[in-house]
Amino acid sequence: MKVSRAPKIPRDRRNDYSSESAQQRREFLQQQTGEPLEQTGQFSIDPQVLPGNIENFIGIVQMPVGIAGPLHINGEYAQGDFYVPLATTEGTLVASYSRGMRVLNECGGVTTTVVEQFMQRAPAFLFENARQARDFGQWVSDNFSKIAAVAESTSSIARLMHIEQWSVARSRYLRFNYTTGDAAGQNMVSKATLIASEWIKENSPIPCDYLLSGNMDTDKKHSHLNMIHSRGRRVIAEAVLKKDVVKRMLHTDTRMMARAAVMSNTGARIAGAAYNGPHSANGIASLFIATGQDEANVVESHAGHLSHELLDNDDLYMSVTLPSLIVATYGGGTGLPTQKECLNLMDCYGKGKANKLAEIVAATVLAGDISLASAVIAGHWVSSHDRLGRNRP
Amino acid sequence: MKVSRAPKIPRDRRNDYSSESAQQRREFLQQQTGEPLEQTGQFSIDPQVLPGNIENFIGIVQMPVGIAGPLHINGEYAQGDFYVPLATTEGTLVASYSRGMRVLNECGGVTTTVVEQFMQRAPAFLFENARQARDFGQWVSDNFSKIAAVAESTSSIARLMHIEQWSVARSRYLRFNYTTGDAAGQNMVSKATLIASEWIKENSPIPCDYLLSGNMDTDKKHSHLNMIHSRGRRVIAEAVLKKDVVKRMLHTDTRMMARAAVMSNTGARIAGAAYNGPHSANGIASLFIATGQDEANVVESHAGHLSHELLDNDDLYMSVTLPSLIVATYGGGTGLPTQKECLNLMDCYGKGKANKLAEIVAATVLAGDISLASAVIAGHWVSSHDRLGRNRP
Amino acid sequence: MKVSRAPKIPRDRRNDYSSESAQQRREFLQQQTGEPLEQTGQFSIDPQVLPGNIENFIGIVQMPVGIAGPLHINGEYAQGDFYVPLATTEGTLVASYSRGMRVLNECGGVTTTVVEQFMQRAPAFLFENARQARDFGQWVSDNFSKIAAVAESTSSIARLMHIEQWSVARSRYLRFNYTTGDAAGQNMVSKATLIASEWIKENSPIPCDYLLSGNMDTDKKHSHLNMIHSRGRRVIAEAVLKKDVVKRMLHTDTRMMARAAVMSNTGARIAGAAYNGPHSANGIASLFIATGQDEANVVESHAGHLSHELLDNDDLYMSVTLPSLIVATYGGGTGLPTQKECLNLMDCYGKGKANKLAEIVAATVLAGDISLASAVIAGHWVSSHDRLGRNRP
Amino acid sequence: MKVSRAPKIPRDRRNDYSSESAQQRREFLQQQTGEPLEQTGQFSIDPQVLPGNIENFIGIVQMPVGIAGPLHINGEYAQGDFYVPLATTEGTLVASYSRGMRVLNECGGVTTTVVEQFMQRAPAFLFENARQARDFGQWVSDNFSKIAAVAESTSSIARLMHIEQWSVARSRYLRFNYTTGDAAGQNMVSKATLIASEWIKENSPIPCDYLLSGNMDTDKKHSHLNMIHSRGRRVIAEAVLKKDVVKRMLHTDTRMMARAAVMSNTGARIAGAAYNGPHSANGIASLFIATGQDEANVVESHAGHLSHELLDNDDLYMSVTLPSLIVATYGGGTGLPTQKECLNLMDCYGKGKANKLAEIVAATVLAGDISLASAVIAGHWVSSHDRLGRNRP
Repeated sequence: MKVSRAPKIPRDRRNDYSSESAQQRREFLQQQTGEPLEQTGQFSIDPQVLPGNIENFIGIVQMPVGIAGPLHINGEYAQGDFYVPLATTEGTLVASYSRGMRVLNECGGVTTTVVEQFMQRAPAFLFENARQARDFGQWVSDNFSKIAAVAESTSSIARLMHIEQWSVARSRYLRFNYTTGDAAGQNMVSKATLIASEWIKENSPIPCDYLLSGNMDTDKKHSHLNMIHSRGRRVIAEAVLKKDVVKRMLHTDTRMMARAAVMSNTGARIAGAAYNGPHSANGIASLFIATGQDEANVVESHAGHLSHELLDNDDLYMSVTLPSLIVATYGGGTGLPTQKECLNLMDCYGKGKANKLAEIVAATVLAGDISLASAVIAGHWVSSHDRLGRNRP
Repeated sequence: MKVSRAPKIPRDRRNDYSSESAQQRREFLQQQTGEPLEQTGQFSIDPQVLPGNIENFIGIVQMPVGIAGPLHINGEYAQGDFYVPLATTEGTLVASYSRGMRVLNECGGVTTTVVEQFMQRAPAFLFENARQARDFGQWVSDNFSKIAAVAESTSSIARLMHIEQWSVARSRYLRFNYTTGDAAGQNMVSKATLIASEWIKENSPIPCDYLLSGNMDTDKKHSHLNMIHSRGRRVIAEAVLKKDVVKRMLHTDTRMMARAAVMSNTGARIAGAAYNGPHSANGIASLFIATGQDEANVVESHAGHLSHELLDNDDLYMSVTLPSLIVATYGGGTGLPTQKECLNLMDCYGKGKANKLAEIVAATVLAGDISLASAVIAGHWVSSHDRLGRNRP
Repeated sequence: MKVSRAPKIPRDRRNDYSSESAQQRREFLQQQTGEPLEQTGQFSIDPQVLPGNIENFIGIVQMPVGIAGPLHINGEYAQGDFYVPLATTEGTLVASYSRGMRVLNECGGVTTTVVEQFMQRAPAFLFENARQARDFGQWVSDNFSKIAAVAESTSSIARLMHIEQWSVARSRYLRFNYTTGDAAGQNMVSKATLIASEWIKENSPIPCDYLLSGNMDTDKKHSHLNMIHSRGRRVIAEAVLKKDVVKRMLHTDTRMMARAAVMSNTGARIAGAAYNGPHSANGIASLFIATGQDEANVVESHAGHLSHELLDNDDLYMSVTLPSLIVATYGGGTGLPTQKECLNLMDCYGKGKANKLAEIVAATVLAGDISLASAVIAGHWVSSHDRLGRNRP
Repeated sequence: MKVSRAPKIPRDRRNDYSSESAQQRREFLQQQTGEPLEQTGQFSIDPQVLPGNIENFIGIVQMPVGIAGPLHINGEYAQGDFYVPLATTEGTLVASYSRGMRVLNECGGVTTTVVEQFMQRAPAFLFENARQARDFGQWVSDNFSKIAAVAESTSSIARLMHIEQWSVARSRYLRFNYTTGDAAGQNMVSKATLIASEWIKENSPIPCDYLLSGNMDTDKKHSHLNMIHSRGRRVIAEAVLKKDVVKRMLHTDTRMMARAAVMSNTGARIAGAAYNGPHSANGIASLFIATGQDEANVVESHAGHLSHELLDNDDLYMSVTLPSLIVATYGGGTGLPTQKECLNLMDCYGKGKANKLAEIVAATVLAGDISLASAVIAGHWVSSHDRLGRNRP
């Protein structure tokens, strides 16, 4: 068994967030690998803003941004016409979303609704037997207000709304549900739940151990639980596709779209898919990268339900429900220069804007799904990739 | 109902991939939104390389890249010590992965195995009744070699390996499974399957219609089907954590880690989670962005199984199985300047490198999971976020 | 298209629940099919007790009953030694459960805990748009006590504990959670929810339609929702298998059992199985038939989690958690003569006995799983079927 | 810790399958519990036929049987009009299925199609590392015909059709897929797979251990895998509901039914339900008990997909797809006197009849779902239970 003898990555203990320390690491990597990282080393961002976002900074990846839109949204927070920045390297993606947006505009735009917001941390408490675990659960319920007070003492924003509970064997899984304002809130709720769990451990009449996460959060992964109980925001985007607009702009008809949707729903169900529409993840990932969202949260956020209903006049009601869309307009990567600019494009940076951003994401997903769904039906899906997507073999 | 009157995004019909057209769009957006997009407009990338990656290009998002490692990998393709570029805005992420890598190095590194590779397109064929659909399925099986020849005529790379079939109602869902070399291959297999489906429609003795995707692909979404039948590469990373290394470097012990893993597995199962470990999505998303992967494919790729086994000497065998890891070292965003540099860092750009990249991703995921899992146990998870992650409220 | 000309089944409008009407139907069936139904026509049950259990009664199926046990249970309701009646036609089943019970007795018996009880009916309310649906949900929450009063007016037993809610598209799915005493309660809660839904429709400030079941009940089917939110009783059975007892009576060892359990858990997770142990459904189905439970409810009831934990002294903690065990000791088929006798065997007939029966079922499942799991390891699984199960090819 | 001192159940070593030994056990139970088991002790069945079906026989449970029908089936095996025996204690069940059958008859009957048949046993093979597991898998594929020959040597019926494989960590899960004629086949395939696994272990060039079941069978439990890959028979029942028949006989209309189906599908998907229709499990469980099927197999068998499609003339195409319907017409409980009579009623006993029985089950499920679905819409669901189901509180 060989232990690695490759040298350590250099760090500057006095100031590791400087152009010099980044350059020093690039030079080190060039020595080790031969790659000079010339482009990666060209950035306009000031490394001094990066603590809290990255360690061992060496430079940047240039993610190209395309602009889709305008998209007319009739939201409670997002009202008016939006130009939506999408950071992607997948050809045709921006063009396809833009097409969907044009169709939606012609049909009167998208109506959006934020239903609820929660962020979770889910510790697991361990006992000698199942009866203790059950009785502990009752004690937790009885002492909710005290627990909430302790948890909320750690943050001026996080509010503990309720605690879900599950008994499995001799464990009791708790799932703390917070609102976290305009932050995604994962760290905020971790901190709050740690303090609360310590308090619980000290005060519980039944002795217990605990693990800060028993994996029912479920952080950074899709889960059926996230489908059922919102992690992030539950947001719905609705539109009625007019029969004639579909014919004119999408070269198909609403009855065909409804029929294809049934086929797709069936396929998605047999496959056990997290989403039954064409490609929620594309729009979400692109918007997330452009706006400094936690890029891994696309796995929770892409789950959802695409609904359709053929109306009596053959117009087609369509809507997308995203139960666990995790967005922030404050904290994390949202304040980085380019990301902040992309948020500003939609007037979505800072406090009081997260619901607005959630509405824009959901409306964008709907646009992309309408576009791709109709393209599959009209049969020119491959050809549009052929024309625009030549970088993709 | 108000139809949007916001102006169209300007395009340059002669050459839409120039700095000028990008600037023109930024100026347009400044007029419309007030946001000058100063930082977004600063890039070293030549827009002429972008056709096939983006439309309506306006500039770039600067995703900060940190370097983790070295990580010692005993792969069949990745052999030696690797410095892994992670593009992220989540503080502590790079530091945490690096910590896991140091531990793995001390334990002899990570052994990696690519098991298989497939990429799918899944058309649905429609019939008058279930009996026709069933008999058609038999005809497809009987004519596989002809169908494969047609499909493969569209590409020098794609090879049709087998077709899975499902009868539901009066439809027959087919799922074409290809190997696609070093490309992710979604477009390649779409094209191949379209041609093959047209051939099938023309030659089937039973008349049929079809939809190019019946959603059993399942493209750009997690599905249980992807857990069962590999979409992308199935790759496994294994290591044996030495009892004393865990104690010294992770400040916990292997028995505690095993016990916590059981708790986490139970939680993940009750929650119906796509992954039972701590956070595969973090490492995958960060590596994907850094190396020009399709950023939406993290939803398929993050699914998997983290295994553990406490050995008789209290060392801890751990491994991660990623059944549907979609990576490319050719095509898509891999050729963009910064992304290509990040691939070069690991000698992973171009033909013949995708298995190597898959191994590095899996090994990285294992490092990150070991680090976070032990941090949760040792109780300093929140505190490390507090110290390093101050940009996250 | 041929319309059936086969004659109608005869019914006696004055008294259809008599031996004569049953005989008349058997004679009719003999005329139609040639089968005299001699054995089926032999029953000691008085047909006059059957209204509410069956229509078009023709006789009985004789389900053989075997007796397993004794099983020592340390429950809160079931305390002492129980002989468990199992109605089955699967050879070795009774013998296998009995073997597990003997092992458990040697280890001090099974500790059982009922955690909670709920029965659901889940209407879906339809609106013009998602915003109405959301606001309606708030109104429902605000008026919970009124709704509960209306619902509970239909029954002296059903108590409405809480209403879960989900917004999807422009619908609001409600899930009424009741306690239903010692009845399974499906009909009781249907009636209560119908009345409550009518009241809601009349009183909601937002006009709505509704469907009495939007399939989130989820009645007569397994669902992940039932795994998460108890439908029926959540009950846990625990035991510590002593190392030496396992060696002596099961011819294997606890470390092997633990290792095999990990293998099985992994397989179950990859397969997406409703239960991760060997065969909860066997014990549940057999006990259900013997005791007059609704035989279809085995699909909800068999879901669950088999937990194991190797203790420091190599004893093996094992437990089964059944989140949605639906049992009744009153109503339905429980009052039929033979079924009632089987309930009486365990002192489980009538009011105040459902928790006791739930504990016995869970303990029985644990016994069967221990027996089969160890048999698979010890390798004599097939041979015991060979010896005892000769009626099964 | 108290070890049970309750006495052992008496057995007769010379002949434990006699009326006397059954009586002896009943008397023993009366002594222990006070319950005389008078009704349970009344049976016409000869205990000498019971070896292979039950141990510790004490008597019978009298399951009342009602007759539904006639049901006109246009199957490949079931052709004509069938009277369907349903053993149940749930009031209204037989009446509801009969109503659905009348409607289907009026619409021309049900067309049924058996698509495929498999029964599985799934051993897991263990290796030192993932690479060995992968290479072993290749060896298994290369040696399939030899393995099949060994497996098939144990039975004149079982045929090994293919072996599915999954690599997880350092294990290789195999899933042997057999056809098993008219038997359910679980024991047959266990025996065949045991012999084959022993041969594999001896002949594999890579040393291995194995567990006869790694839980990917997945026996006696619902799983998503069973939804995808048929366990038992995949059978489809189709019908076109005529608009006017629905109006006349079901007091609703096909558009309403289609709309309600969409609501139900959505609810089922959000809930993660194994079946998206109203109640497949009811019909299956009742038919299973009446015909001597393995009563636990309802958990696998009830999974499936209810499809609907509103045709241009407002007739409603409906079909049920049951992917894992496990039925036998030979072996197990099928030969017991009353069970055999019930099979004979449909001319379904013995060799060559399993496909026919599968078709009847699927057609029955469709009848029941149409009846209940329309009852929910028409709003008289609760009232019909009220009238007929008075034994259910």
